Amino acid sequence: MTGTLYGIGVGPGDPELITLKAHRILQEVPVIAWPAPLEGESMARRIAATHLPGGQTEIAIRMPLSVDRFPVEVVYDEAAETLAGHLTAGRDVAVLCEGDPFVYGSFMYLFARMAERFPVGVVPGVSSLTAGAAALGAPLAARNDVLSVIPAPLPEAMLERRLADADAAVIIKVGRHLAKLRRVLARLDLADHARYVEYATMPEQTVQPFATISADAAPYFSLVLVHRRGDAWR
Amino acid sequence: MTGTLYGIGVGPGDPELITLKAHRILQEVPVIAWPAPLEGESMARRIAATHLPGGQTEIAIRMPLSVDRFPVEVVYDEAAETLAGHLTAGRDVAVLCEGDPFVYGSFMYLFARMAERFPVGVVPGVSSLTAGAAALGAPLAARNDVLSVIPAPLPEAMLERRLADADAAVIIKVGRHLAKLRRVLARLDLADHARYVEYATMPEQTVQPFATISADAAPYFSLVLVHRRGDAWR
Repeated sequence: MTGTLYGIGVGPGDPELITLKAHRILQEVPVIAWPAPLEGESMARRIAATHLPGGQTEIAIRMPLSVDRFPVEVVYDEAAETLAGHLTAGRDVAVLCEGDPFVYGSFMYLFARMAERFPVGVVPGVSSLTAGAAALGAPLAARNDVLSVIPAPLPEAMLERRLADADAAVIIKVGRHLAKLRRVLARLDLADHARYVEYATMPEQTVQPFATISADAAPYFSLVLVHRRGDAWR
Repeated sequence: MTGTLYGIGVGPGDPELITLKAHRILQEVPVIAWPAPLEGESMARRIAATHLPGGQTEIAIRMPLSVDRFPVEVVYDEAAETLAGHLTAGRDVAVLCEGDPFVYGSFMYLFARMAERFPVGVVPGVSSLTAGAAALGAPLAARNDVLSVIPAPLPEAMLERRLADADAAVIIKVGRHLAKLRRVLARLDLADHARYVEYATMPEQTVQPFATISADAAPYFSLVLVHRRGDAWR
């Protein structure tokens, strides 16, 4: 009797924005795993904390923040083997995923290594994209808008081309790309159509016009939302 | 004491994919409202049904399926007045929204009419976009992919241009636009990269390669997911 691997979307930050299904599975599984930086807190673990019954085996998947390919592959290979041991022994394993497991999440790297060997169940969650829109109090997209989700690490020219063509856009992975993004939005005359959200639905949540941000780096949990027609939904 | 208007994301279909927060608010409010076709069932009401305590005032917002501008405006104007009556009398009102309230949802039309007059709280939900990816067992987007959410009612040339430029795409509002979409995907040589999901997370859920669909119309609750590199997430 092989165990099942669950990818559990724990939602964007507010622990109350977890689904009933995710909550139930977290009560039932003997093993949980969660991503974390090499040192410091796992945000996924923090979001899920109040929903864990205690007494579970916990596996930290600690990842260097640098994006060098080699060590990342090794970390996922090793994590996959650890999880496979539990699954082979018949124990279900839940991997905690910030937001939704299949929206730019690291769960996909475990999924790629394990989906052919073990039964996998993916529990979708509230993603930071819609949490950001709720925090702003403005629709993400309306009517026949094309909505573009654009990673800020793209090269500057590509970022500009994508934003120039977007009706509505969410810019993710802002991090250290804030200065580049500021230049691009200014050239496109879109800075006044852009708003910045940090830690949506968490106690630290802040929302402000993009034009008022002066820093050159943003935390990982930040988004910039752009809508060409500011009140398109009216 | 004015009541609060809540836009409640009830999730994509499986009643267990509602959030704890949405569930709590549905227990507490004296008035709920939900969109429905002129005749027949409200999908939002059906999804939320097992979470309603009973005894609440229920307001149906019934909408003709035709998209003529005039009657739609009248329906929202009238619904807004009805809800305003409850809010002015101090009663909280929860509007049930399929998926997430701010992802192409009709809630935005009520929001536009009421946000300046009454306190509004938006509770984000699991959207059909991520539910579709979970149903397919494939990530929606990965790494530095640009994810495009593209409404199928767009004119054929525009639909083609948008799809030609997409790393990963979710095509929404497929409905009677299936034949047009089939032509576009064939011209772009993307038909074999496209998969079709109907009623994701509901008992009626079906998933199949797009190329095997022969109908010319799809139900409202259907999506087509396209990824240029089929296994980009591996």
